[in-house]
Amino acid sequence: MYGPHRINNGSHLTESEDEHCMTTKMRSEIAEQPAALRATLDALLPRTEEVRRLAQDTRHMLFIARGTSDNAAVYGRYLIEARAGRLSALAAPSIATTYRRTLDLDGVLAVGLSQSGRTEEIVETLEWAKACGAKTVAITNGGEESPLAQAADLALCTLAGEEKAVPATKTYTTQLAALAVLALGLGADVNGDDLRRVPDAVEKLISDPGDLDAVVDGLAGKPGVVVSGRGLAFSTALELALKLKEACYMHAMGLSYADLLHGPIAVVDEDTPAVLVASGEGPTLAGTISLAQRVTGAGASAFGVGGGTELAAASTASLNGPDLPEWVSPLGLIVPGQLLTEALARRLGIDPDAPRGLNKVTQTD
Amino acid sequence: MYGPHRINNGSHLTESEDEHCMTTKMRSEIAEQPAALRATLDALLPRTEEVRRLAQDTRHMLFIARGTSDNAAVYGRYLIEARAGRLSALAAPSIATTYRRTLDLDGVLAVGLSQSGRTEEIVETLEWAKACGAKTVAITNGGEESPLAQAADLALCTLAGEEKAVPATKTYTTQLAALAVLALGLGADVNGDDLRRVPDAVEKLISDPGDLDAVVDGLAGKPGVVVSGRGLAFSTALELALKLKEACYMHAMGLSYADLLHGPIAVVDEDTPAVLVASGEGPTLAGTISLAQRVTGAGASAFGVGGGTELAAASTASLNGPDLPEWVSPLGLIVPGQLLTEALARRLGIDPDAPRGLNKVTQTD
Repeated sequence: MYGPHRINNGSHLTESEDEHCMTTKMRSEIAEQPAALRATLDALLPRTEEVRRLAQDTRHMLFIARGTSDNAAVYGRYLIEARAGRLSALAAPSIATTYRRTLDLDGVLAVGLSQSGRTEEIVETLEWAKACGAKTVAITNGGEESPLAQAADLALCTLAGEEKAVPATKTYTTQLAALAVLALGLGADVNGDDLRRVPDAVEKLISDPGDLDAVVDGLAGKPGVVVSGRGLAFSTALELALKLKEACYMHAMGLSYADLLHGPIAVVDEDTPAVLVASGEGPTLAGTISLAQRVTGAGASAFGVGGGTELAAASTASLNGPDLPEWVSPLGLIVPGQLLTEALARRLGIDPDAPRGLNKVTQTD
Repeated sequence: MYGPHRINNGSHLTESEDEHCMTTKMRSEIAEQPAALRATLDALLPRTEEVRRLAQDTRHMLFIARGTSDNAAVYGRYLIEARAGRLSALAAPSIATTYRRTLDLDGVLAVGLSQSGRTEEIVETLEWAKACGAKTVAITNGGEESPLAQAADLALCTLAGEEKAVPATKTYTTQLAALAVLALGLGADVNGDDLRRVPDAVEKLISDPGDLDAVVDGLAGKPGVVVSGRGLAFSTALELALKLKEACYMHAMGLSYADLLHGPIAVVDEDTPAVLVASGEGPTLAGTISLAQRVTGAGASAFGVGGGTELAAASTASLNGPDLPEWVSPLGLIVPGQLLTEALARRLGIDPDAPRGLNKVTQTD
């Protein structure tokens, strides 16, 4: 799979940067997340009243994003539907930028997410949403002066600091924090204090992610993997699948476990393990444990991420999840997956900081 | 990849049913599509006024589906946004069935799609939508007496006849026909007569799908493939990826080409070809041709599906698309992909009628 013909050349590790002695930028940025989350929550938690005022004449949500930011939007979508009771759609940006069709977005709160705040497609689609009658929010790490923040009625700027590795880590988890603040502003029936517990929970996962070596061993050399979760944990499954695609060049398929059973379960076999992600509580945990039992019972490998002792017991090997209520657990649940991605990339001889074919800011039309 | 440990045992071909002398149910059902489409259009085209009346006090759309039906919903979503100007969301059924949260769906037209009309999760979610205030439409091949049709204010029943092969073919294309009729009822700015051209166009593709052998050769033995399209053709890319997963056990990733450039492009290499799907006209064709040039220019294989002579010229080998306007082209564009799936499965020694791990009606909670 790692032959000479590439879409672009990425960086490869030299012998002196091998698996055991190298510190990548990605690894450093994973470790910066507790501080990035504290700074972001300090800045954004006082702003829920601004969200409430902007949203008061709106009923539905529209998220506008691509890539990692789109996976963050999936968290926002489930959180706001499940806990704030508002119908949420994920935008098809091509309707705005390619088909150039006007929709009636009166009564819609549109949320554009871009880590850089400079992805033109997202800026243009948020501007389109405003022109169609929506109220608009920007969630970006690019600052108040970024084009996305400038285009929005309200900007929730994350304070992750500069991110140098191509795979997004701290800009992703701080996006989730901003979405949690947004949900509070929309009246979600949750305890906002739970958010303050997140940085410590992330710190704990970084120092004790569980059986990382066993999961790296189980994925190294496999061409593909299915990554599955449901409900609030579905966003984490999508994001981990994207990380494994972009930094480990794996054929990683992120799926809701309900969708997995509608066809793609056919690909899970001894050469295609499943990674199953779940919060330690909540209504989707039981189904995830059953799926792990189904996979291992058939002789394939299931690697658990989170899901407490029961998912761990049903899995071939597992990574720890955060000790957090379900609604904020995705902020921690991706962290062992980030560590897995970074370690697996190094095992495969790939520099996770600069995978082939990718730039830090992706421009699409 | 096809070792002894399986999630379930699927059927394998015996020597007497090898690639060259066997007629599968899937192949027969692909060939039944022109007649199935004619019957469905005859039944549903007279019903646009019923759709108009039901929809008149609604503004937004909500599609409820899983698996192949969800790929059909993606077509409906793009078609209705791009040509009828209504914001469309794809439902997260777990909000209804697992989180049991009520949303305010007043002013929403909810469309439930299930080929059998008996997938409980979809029936339950459509009933939930009605209880939340939505007007409801069922699109099903299960008939007026099916639970989904019974649950809806209006049922658009497709007339595909019984489908025996597990991979859906004629029930999928007739779902697309029903969605096209729905769009007409919603006032789409298209020429409804175009729909009448579809059965002949499908017939022509079945008799002349293009360079099927070359594309089968190019995919056989590859562990993974990226299938990409954009806008209205995105639904076809998702559906072809699902077919290749369920019937050929390939790690097939269906992606919008915009999303492909945000990370997953890293996986495309000499061992991971791209299949690129486009209508022969419309605003997403140029970008698809550019992507084919980028992939082949880097030494990887790009197989075109549709997209006219320009996409064919930019591709390693290609399948024909229908000679149809963009808005109805997805009804034909999947057909060469169905033929590809069926032929590739046989080449790999898999019986496409009964892949491992799957039943005809999937029940999820």
